[in-house]
Amino acid sequence: MEFRIEKDTMGEVQVPANVYWGAQTQRSIENFKIAQDINKMPKEIIRAFAYLKHGAALANLECGVLDQEKADLIGNVCQEILDGKLDDQFPLVVWQTGSGTQSNMNCNEVIAYRAHVLKGGNLTDKTKFIHPNDDVNKSQSSNDTFPTAMHIAAYKMLVEVTIPGIEKLRDTLEKKSKEFMGIVKIGRTHFMDATPLTLGQEFSGYVSQLNHGLKAIKNTLAHLSELALGGTAVGTGINTPPRYAEVVAEKIAQLTGLPFVTAENKFEALAAHDAIVEAHGALKTVAVSLMKIGNDIRMLSSGPRAGIGEIHIPDNEPGSSIMPGKVNPTQCEAMTMVAAQVLGNDVAINVGGATGHFELNVFKPMMIYNFLHSARLIGDSCVSFNDKCAVGIEPLKENITKHVNNSLMLVTALNTKIGYYKAAEIAQTAHKNGSTLKETAIALGYLTAEEFDQWVKPEDMVGKIN
Amino acid sequence: MEFRIEKDTMGEVQVPANVYWGAQTQRSIENFKIAQDINKMPKEIIRAFAYLKHGAALANLECGVLDQEKADLIGNVCQEILDGKLDDQFPLVVWQTGSGTQSNMNCNEVIAYRAHVLKGGNLTDKTKFIHPNDDVNKSQSSNDTFPTAMHIAAYKMLVEVTIPGIEKLRDTLEKKSKEFMGIVKIGRTHFMDATPLTLGQEFSGYVSQLNHGLKAIKNTLAHLSELALGGTAVGTGINTPPRYAEVVAEKIAQLTGLPFVTAENKFEALAAHDAIVEAHGALKTVAVSLMKIGNDIRMLSSGPRAGIGEIHIPDNEPGSSIMPGKVNPTQCEAMTMVAAQVLGNDVAINVGGATGHFELNVFKPMMIYNFLHSARLIGDSCVSFNDKCAVGIEPLKENITKHVNNSLMLVTALNTKIGYYKAAEIAQTAHKNGSTLKETAIALGYLTAEEFDQWVKPEDMVGKIN
Amino acid sequence: MEFRIEKDTMGEVQVPANVYWGAQTQRSIENFKIAQDINKMPKEIIRAFAYLKHGAALANLECGVLDQEKADLIGNVCQEILDGKLDDQFPLVVWQTGSGTQSNMNCNEVIAYRAHVLKGGNLTDKTKFIHPNDDVNKSQSSNDTFPTAMHIAAYKMLVEVTIPGIEKLRDTLEKKSKEFMGIVKIGRTHFMDATPLTLGQEFSGYVSQLNHGLKAIKNTLAHLSELALGGTAVGTGINTPPRYAEVVAEKIAQLTGLPFVTAENKFEALAAHDAIVEAHGALKTVAVSLMKIGNDIRMLSSGPRAGIGEIHIPDNEPGSSIMPGKVNPTQCEAMTMVAAQVLGNDVAINVGGATGHFELNVFKPMMIYNFLHSARLIGDSCVSFNDKCAVGIEPLKENITKHVNNSLMLVTALNTKIGYYKAAEIAQTAHKNGSTLKETAIALGYLTAEEFDQWVKPEDMVGKIN
Amino acid sequence: MEFRIEKDTMGEVQVPANVYWGAQTQRSIENFKIAQDINKMPKEIIRAFAYLKHGAALANLECGVLDQEKADLIGNVCQEILDGKLDDQFPLVVWQTGSGTQSNMNCNEVIAYRAHVLKGGNLTDKTKFIHPNDDVNKSQSSNDTFPTAMHIAAYKMLVEVTIPGIEKLRDTLEKKSKEFMGIVKIGRTHFMDATPLTLGQEFSGYVSQLNHGLKAIKNTLAHLSELALGGTAVGTGINTPPRYAEVVAEKIAQLTGLPFVTAENKFEALAAHDAIVEAHGALKTVAVSLMKIGNDIRMLSSGPRAGIGEIHIPDNEPGSSIMPGKVNPTQCEAMTMVAAQVLGNDVAINVGGATGHFELNVFKPMMIYNFLHSARLIGDSCVSFNDKCAVGIEPLKENITKHVNNSLMLVTALNTKIGYYKAAEIAQTAHKNGSTLKETAIALGYLTAEEFDQWVKPEDMVGKIN
Repeated sequence: MEFRIEKDTMGEVQVPANVYWGAQTQRSIENFKIAQDINKMPKEIIRAFAYLKHGAALANLECGVLDQEKADLIGNVCQEILDGKLDDQFPLVVWQTGSGTQSNMNCNEVIAYRAHVLKGGNLTDKTKFIHPNDDVNKSQSSNDTFPTAMHIAAYKMLVEVTIPGIEKLRDTLEKKSKEFMGIVKIGRTHFMDATPLTLGQEFSGYVSQLNHGLKAIKNTLAHLSELALGGTAVGTGINTPPRYAEVVAEKIAQLTGLPFVTAENKFEALAAHDAIVEAHGALKTVAVSLMKIGNDIRMLSSGPRAGIGEIHIPDNEPGSSIMPGKVNPTQCEAMTMVAAQVLGNDVAINVGGATGHFELNVFKPMMIYNFLHSARLIGDSCVSFNDKCAVGIEPLKENITKHVNNSLMLVTALNTKIGYYKAAEIAQTAHKNGSTLKETAIALGYLTAEEFDQWVKPEDMVGKIN
Repeated sequence: MEFRIEKDTMGEVQVPANVYWGAQTQRSIENFKIAQDINKMPKEIIRAFAYLKHGAALANLECGVLDQEKADLIGNVCQEILDGKLDDQFPLVVWQTGSGTQSNMNCNEVIAYRAHVLKGGNLTDKTKFIHPNDDVNKSQSSNDTFPTAMHIAAYKMLVEVTIPGIEKLRDTLEKKSKEFMGIVKIGRTHFMDATPLTLGQEFSGYVSQLNHGLKAIKNTLAHLSELALGGTAVGTGINTPPRYAEVVAEKIAQLTGLPFVTAENKFEALAAHDAIVEAHGALKTVAVSLMKIGNDIRMLSSGPRAGIGEIHIPDNEPGSSIMPGKVNPTQCEAMTMVAAQVLGNDVAINVGGATGHFELNVFKPMMIYNFLHSARLIGDSCVSFNDKCAVGIEPLKENITKHVNNSLMLVTALNTKIGYYKAAEIAQTAHKNGSTLKETAIALGYLTAEEFDQWVKPEDMVGKIN
Repeated sequence: MEFRIEKDTMGEVQVPANVYWGAQTQRSIENFKIAQDINKMPKEIIRAFAYLKHGAALANLECGVLDQEKADLIGNVCQEILDGKLDDQFPLVVWQTGSGTQSNMNCNEVIAYRAHVLKGGNLTDKTKFIHPNDDVNKSQSSNDTFPTAMHIAAYKMLVEVTIPGIEKLRDTLEKKSKEFMGIVKIGRTHFMDATPLTLGQEFSGYVSQLNHGLKAIKNTLAHLSELALGGTAVGTGINTPPRYAEVVAEKIAQLTGLPFVTAENKFEALAAHDAIVEAHGALKTVAVSLMKIGNDIRMLSSGPRAGIGEIHIPDNEPGSSIMPGKVNPTQCEAMTMVAAQVLGNDVAINVGGATGHFELNVFKPMMIYNFLHSARLIGDSCVSFNDKCAVGIEPLKENITKHVNNSLMLVTALNTKIGYYKAAEIAQTAHKNGSTLKETAIALGYLTAEEFDQWVKPEDMVGKIN
Repeated sequence: MEFRIEKDTMGEVQVPANVYWGAQTQRSIENFKIAQDINKMPKEIIRAFAYLKHGAALANLECGVLDQEKADLIGNVCQEILDGKLDDQFPLVVWQTGSGTQSNMNCNEVIAYRAHVLKGGNLTDKTKFIHPNDDVNKSQSSNDTFPTAMHIAAYKMLVEVTIPGIEKLRDTLEKKSKEFMGIVKIGRTHFMDATPLTLGQEFSGYVSQLNHGLKAIKNTLAHLSELALGGTAVGTGINTPPRYAEVVAEKIAQLTGLPFVTAENKFEALAAHDAIVEAHGALKTVAVSLMKIGNDIRMLSSGPRAGIGEIHIPDNEPGSSIMPGKVNPTQCEAMTMVAAQVLGNDVAINVGGATGHFELNVFKPMMIYNFLHSARLIGDSCVSFNDKCAVGIEPLKENITKHVNNSLMLVTALNTKIGYYKAAEIAQTAHKNGSTLKETAIALGYLTAEEFDQWVKPEDMVGKIN
């Protein structure tokens, strides 16, 4: 490979000749050989930096500390980054400095050097038209840019991937719930036969879980909308022009179309990432919901002959390399694996969030890596589960009817007629004898056949269903 | 011990002669010998059941399915429970059936049998005036009562203990923040010397963390305010009179003075406890904040001679059994241990919340045990930390001034004057030579003594402080 | 209440007149009002301190730094503690100083003052015959005593409660496994019908899980057998006589009958609690096993009419307050709740273990509280599950036979005869038509009735079963 | 793109014309659009499958159910996979079926079709010489191959990356420990000044942590060495020839050079992954150690002027984009972020491990993804921390000496001379007055200057140091 020489305040560094990055990016590559093939800094962070650096250039321009030409050049490169044209210029991994300084400098270097080339310069020019620190990073520190990029990336992922994914699944389940509202089936509590409900009612519980989960996520957006930018090194805003913090938040809000504001307290915004911890608390709540839903669906569809078998889910692929004809609830499996992953990610985020010191939390890259992972996984897996499973769920009415009609727990309807204890005696006796409730009730002399038929109607035991 | 015989639907059981509980409570004692000495069902749940059973009696009365005398008797015993007069009548542990049925029956039995005695009956009477299932539990199931008690207990704990505790600490830290707003000190990022801020600014970050944490908790109260009651066995409301669900929620709201409402979806309210998962997500966020604050305070107060030593915290007790005169930041230690516990409890709650099946989650007692534990620990430890530590925090101005004046990072003020690279050279040279920034800057010829004095003023580097 | 005055190095403190504790215990009561009613320091730690203080007195005697009379008096009080006679003298909670100093001083004070009374003195005597620090705590620091007590308590709990509990359940499951070895049943993978195995084989998997779990626990005992005692304040052993560390470990080994040795590195033994983290890593592995087993048992026993229903478990209590005759797998529920708790405790322990600084980890009480909780819960719940559930498990042969004979996955036996693809066609066709494998196979022309009968025998598909 | 048609038992599928995979791989790509760009099935699993498929072919040959030519062809493709020549043929992600069937089939298809091409066939040939199911997967099921691949990959990663990485760091720390053994420094407990120890002693604690961690990992290798292969669909070994399980384990042991054996119980090996849970329990223990070590090193090296500053770590890169000359403990940050990640991964693994049902755990891909992630991160970060930080640690003797000589806790040496209480008075008075221990001790009249000099020698307070 051919190299050129780049310099930073520690001296010279050999850099591959044709890359846009500079000395500090290169140092990080060499200093952090940790899972380099699998843990690149998430691309969403790189793109968030593009918004941020563009917004900062515009704010610096407006505040009179950067000229128009430089601001334009910076903006142009940021657009290239957003267009995915410079994806291979961001080689750094999550496992670097905990402030994300090296990824900030990676962005500063790529923007400065690419801008220099756009202006007609050469990568080998000793002095470049735009300086990574003095121009691209003007009025900024890693300590306020990286958390700002975290919030931009997290917010965007939530509103563009996570929430729409959950909503899509919620909508399908709601449609199914309405469709199945009249199908009376056996209830199960403690995994044991219980009083009946309708299949639509059962599904309405899933809908309600997701609706509450969506509310929980949305409740956390306010904290995520606060941007640290303007705090610079420790939160005081050293080396920023007046009004910079407010202006730059506005610029970023305009560029992203999202309601970002400047953080009310910059010290909190650098030293802690409670917004990430809090928002991921909502994500783990949704993960818990998805685990429940995924488990229920796989159990309800279990069989085909020795399971519960009350619904059918789509046959998507052969399920076994050895058992011919087997089909499995694979979408449930992917979704519940995702749920487990999110519960794990939550702990990583908590530990990182709890371990900041003084003016800076230095678990930033790890925290946002896990956050974006969870937010993406939930969004994607909801869509996958929706498209390949939920939309195709159908009731297996024969089994449903058989189960509910056999159920001993229909006896519950008699509580208000003959009391809990006599009702229990009927159920216990029927269970022991393998007989029906009706014949047992009559045999025990507690009621007549007519009374039984009048009082014990599964369809009357499910309450209001509209 | 003397015994009497009680009966349930499975037959006769020997019960200690003078207790108010009955057969099912006794069965649970014998069936669940798991940590019986340390894991009693939390008393907050028992008291929540007292509100619930009273509210249910009132609703049953209003709906015309219970008479006035029985309703009054039930209400009287509930008041005795709330007054703590029957505390020894609730012997069951957390590790029982996952629906909490046995604790519901414990309440039903104690209320029925105590009411019978209040009415002049005898515990040994074969038939009691009030029946545990048919009267006390009327229009109820364990499956909707236990989750209702969970929400009542959780909500009450949050608003009575957790939130006030956090607010108390927040208020003290806010007072300290204002008091210390003019004290310029060194900042620390990556645990390394950084640009200055004021001690008040540093503390304002803690205040902001707690304020955001309080908002996070309050955001979760809406879901907790939803009561499952009225759903009975599986969410359909079987065996309840019309309008019962709404009426009983109103009654409980009146009795507790808290804004409870009937859950919009009873299937969700029985089958999942996402409200608990979500609300504990807020608690874990606060735990993360407390870990950060506790760590900072112990590090800032470290020494007395070989630490950071920028604040003094109260000397509460001798710190060592072997090192005479040693004093330790013990309140920080208790608070950070609490934070670790809450992070653990969060996972237990997540696992429980994720593992419900069909119409019922059967990790209820474990989930609420952990929730109440966390909510209590956070509230109590905030108060303890406040009273025994935060209120007495004082700056150690001599150390503070020494640290900030020595700091090489004051050089940052020169970035906008001479550029980042020359500023770096000054700092690096001063560090290598052990010299001051000023003498180094002049020696390197980058600025005059006058310029240095004019440009490098710590008090000008901290931004707006009011 | 009446009081007496006690003194420590910070001055005078009012103490209830008739308690054996002194100034430092009292300070802790007043300084740490955190969950005082529910989180007492575990009694196992107090008893471990009794062994430790007795052992230390004997070692001090042998090393010539304590006289016989004092050693005897200390030993006598320690015996009283072990006999449970002084249980009410240890009022402190977990949430105190993170070194456990206050509980160490509680022990020192109670032993010193009780010894003084045993010798004929009075609690109000200004000078006591035995000094809490200079005699009872001689050659010790909280920093080495508390971790020593942690290891003693943890080791004892594991070998006295946890391991025997698991073994008891393992033995029952092994017995059941052998008993059920010939009962051919349907297998289930992905919760879907699969090739057959025997019920005994299925249970043998549980046995293997527990056997591996027992090995995992036993692997961690070596690290737990290392005692910190002799390290005193920071691990250097300051203020200990020669050979003290080895001698005191021997004494404790003799007193407890357990193979304790002096830690090979005292710095590690004070500054970190990786032994606790590691051993709890084994406990969480067992928790994972118990969750699997508990879930399987509840699912296998589900029904009675609309579930899987392949085994029967004992009917222990009425399961529902509203559904008469309902019985639930409550022992499974308690055991799986325990498993969830242990998974949570694991995280609390990890966070505590990771957050020590320099020469001392100060999350000690929290860590051991969680460890003992888990170890106890696992032991107790295994016994409860064993006695009230596992011993009574019986196969429901009718259902078992019906399920296996209906199964489409018996087709797998044809793979080696006619290939995977044709076998799949048979299964898919039978599924679509609701027909049997045999009639479908013949109809498709892939084999004769005789071949089918010869090749497809469930009992030949389960491999070796002895 | 051009396509060809491939078939499986569900019908025809369009596959890119020139890839080696077939219908089932293609279905999985289309069915699981979940994080496809970032969560590919780990390459270590693909390579483990190469060993496995080769071993199975050899075992099938030896057992007489596969001919030499096919076995050779399969072996040749497996070697190509191990050589990395077919890396782009494995496009599937972690979030697929929980049994890993699709990745097993991906391997079967690629091996079969590539073998067909090696033999001179064409990808478009309707019938291939080698069949994915009937030949490559002969005597196998996904249910036993995937867990086998998990153990092969996990074991290899541990012995090739994790353990050597930890050992490398351990060795460096041990060398430093010996080098620094004579450097007396202040101890710190509760982050407060304590009695002295040597820097070498302090480092010896880290060495001991890592040694114990290595033992903990090695203790778990036995369970990981058990291979599920031979259990096929549900553990019974259906469709395997006699002695196959033992033979195939031997073959894999030969091919990998690792001591694999056939699992003693195949039902456990398919239905549970406690070996993974257990082994990751050891990894999380090491993560806890690394968090402690990383925190200590960053705190000991803090400053340069307002921190603890007792050691110097290498200056690897400019630390700040705004603060010139700043250098940060970035290797500590990467390592502690890794530790947090591992603690999170542990929970994901626990949840997955706990949620298997009946004969199969279907969280396999998620579990091994997290396991390999942790094992890799620990190994890599230990090496990075070693090479870029630990090897360059140097003591800052001036600060060390200043701190220890100033320390009030040297007073502890007087306990055995004048008692704890008088010693405390000296320390407290000196602290209050800002005076030295010596002048205070003399002023209080408790000892002479000569006695002080004789009794209070830091170098005598550190115990044995060799």
